[in-house]
Amino acid sequence: MAAAPAPIETDAAVIGAGPAGLFQVFQLGLHGIRAHVIDALPHAGGQCAELYPDKPIYDIPALPFCTGQELAERLQRQAAPFAPVYHLGQEVAALAPQADGRLLLETMGGTRLLARTVVIAAGVGAFVPRALPVPQAEAFVRYHLDGEPATLADWAGQPVAVYGDDDVALERAFHLADAGAHVTLLYRREVLQAAPHNMERLAALRAAGRIHFIAGQVTGHALDASGQLAALRVTDAEGTEHALPARLLLAWLGLSPRLGPLAHWGLAMERKQLAVDAASFATSLPGVFAVGDVVTYPGKRKLILCAFHEAALAAFSAAEHLRPGEKIALQYTTTSTHLHALLGVASPQHGTAA
Amino acid sequence: MAAAPAPIETDAAVIGAGPAGLFQVFQLGLHGIRAHVIDALPHAGGQCAELYPDKPIYDIPALPFCTGQELAERLQRQAAPFAPVYHLGQEVAALAPQADGRLLLETMGGTRLLARTVVIAAGVGAFVPRALPVPQAEAFVRYHLDGEPATLADWAGQPVAVYGDDDVALERAFHLADAGAHVTLLYRREVLQAAPHNMERLAALRAAGRIHFIAGQVTGHALDASGQLAALRVTDAEGTEHALPARLLLAWLGLSPRLGPLAHWGLAMERKQLAVDAASFATSLPGVFAVGDVVTYPGKRKLILCAFHEAALAAFSAAEHLRPGEKIALQYTTTSTHLHALLGVASPQHGTAA
Repeated sequence: MAAAPAPIETDAAVIGAGPAGLFQVFQLGLHGIRAHVIDALPHAGGQCAELYPDKPIYDIPALPFCTGQELAERLQRQAAPFAPVYHLGQEVAALAPQADGRLLLETMGGTRLLARTVVIAAGVGAFVPRALPVPQAEAFVRYHLDGEPATLADWAGQPVAVYGDDDVALERAFHLADAGAHVTLLYRREVLQAAPHNMERLAALRAAGRIHFIAGQVTGHALDASGQLAALRVTDAEGTEHALPARLLLAWLGLSPRLGPLAHWGLAMERKQLAVDAASFATSLPGVFAVGDVVTYPGKRKLILCAFHEAALAAFSAAEHLRPGEKIALQYTTTSTHLHALLGVASPQHGTAA
Repeated sequence: MAAAPAPIETDAAVIGAGPAGLFQVFQLGLHGIRAHVIDALPHAGGQCAELYPDKPIYDIPALPFCTGQELAERLQRQAAPFAPVYHLGQEVAALAPQADGRLLLETMGGTRLLARTVVIAAGVGAFVPRALPVPQAEAFVRYHLDGEPATLADWAGQPVAVYGDDDVALERAFHLADAGAHVTLLYRREVLQAAPHNMERLAALRAAGRIHFIAGQVTGHALDASGQLAALRVTDAEGTEHALPARLLLAWLGLSPRLGPLAHWGLAMERKQLAVDAASFATSLPGVFAVGDVVTYPGKRKLILCAFHEAALAAFSAAEHLRPGEKIALQYTTTSTHLHALLGVASPQHGTAA
């Protein structure tokens, strides 16, 4: 077995690329600290970009109106001068203090980071595909295809099943059908929740016999001699069982947040939240801070604008942790030429007329 | 003596119309609480609109760049749906708890408000004209002219002195000269700090004999038989004393913040800051909350973005104070139709396709 590559060394790692994590990157940057950012989603923005990208938010201070997507973009733009390194589509599996005081982070995808300080901005948890409610489903259900779309052709001529009712599920069924697979779309009921153009396309593909549809639940499966999926048992609303040949079951029930592994990192918790000190946003583990919806402290309200405050204070604490004994003074972005240099902006000239 | 008019009754009064006070108005509005706002400056925006209206701020979350003036305007626009009543150009002189638990506020201009709850967002204090450093100056110096510009004509033919070196001081001297007064401009040194066009205009008026200039300090004064100012003693850089006839000394050394009267309202303080509970932003006086640069609590940093968080939490506390026994639940502006109605915006439709 090959030795694992050396982990990436960094001053700071931020877990979560939602609004709290993105502003955390900016605030760390103001202290001259560059951050690596890890998020389970394949894009930055967290909840607001994932759950309400087009819906308006009215309570971001001085932004009377913006959408979730716009907020995520603005925060990424603000953090950009500090050149964060994003590790997206990766859920953090482990956080382990090392003998030298650093923290080893390991993602489920195998990325390892050795960080001098960590800020957890994990929100309501990592957004992961909602599980198909079938016992032992993990043995035969897949929630995404590695290497898509290049690998879609691998399914040409094979029987595949796609479970789901929304645009994402339908579009995956269309892609597989286009690649030449024999596609059956499954969902527990007849009524689907997709956009009209996708409903029309589905109707056309069904009429052409290129996609079949069964309203039913997956209630069992059969493997072939090599241990690969061979067939599914699907039980419809009348209780009738169907034996459906299938080499693949691709399920899409949307994303769901889960606190996941971080509940097992030995951090003090209160009612499924990380307990932090509201003056420093320190967790119970030295060098580990936490901000945003994942934390609790007296008076905590789960508002994005509160996470911004928390990130600012956590950045001071992280800077103090990285520079023990040094007094970390507050500087203002309006007047500090030091901060202007970090931000890469010109310092204003003080005009005086003789 | 006529009886004072009845005070204005209100659910909430906010002292200070800087960023913290403006966002406080918005946050109170989200709880259905309409606020009266009082500020010593003649315009909203506080420090950032007064001290750095054109200078950039880089650390307002999701606003990678904005000026102090723009920030003030954005926050006013955000608060506008809640129709705050502004009382500008008025410094609050007194805050006194009443027998019924309400708080009586009185401004130096005589405005009185009877509020069920008060949020102090007074920043570094009320911005008031910087005092001329002359003993007993208050007896004969004026920092503004009541009823200007209509009353400028009153000074026609009279000897007046204007002390100061910036554009505001020079423009006041010009206005008085235009009104026919005999104007002497005073400043402690020859080098002035005004814009080129004002320096040119001053040179032209001096050449025409319409404005005189003396580089010197005011070191004394003389009153006439009726107790009105008659002359000033001005001591120049060489120590020479000048007897300068003057019916008016109008001084302008800019604005300076002063904590002022609020230090005497009986509120618990720590090192010239209001001591607040960081979970509720309650001061030591029931019904009185405080946010922004005027407060201190463990971990406090004087950042505008922290004041936003403080204002959000203070609004919950104010709502709880106004509705004792009621549980004040957190609602999101993205999803709450109740908040949409308060904000006067349409609630998004949840799109489903059959």
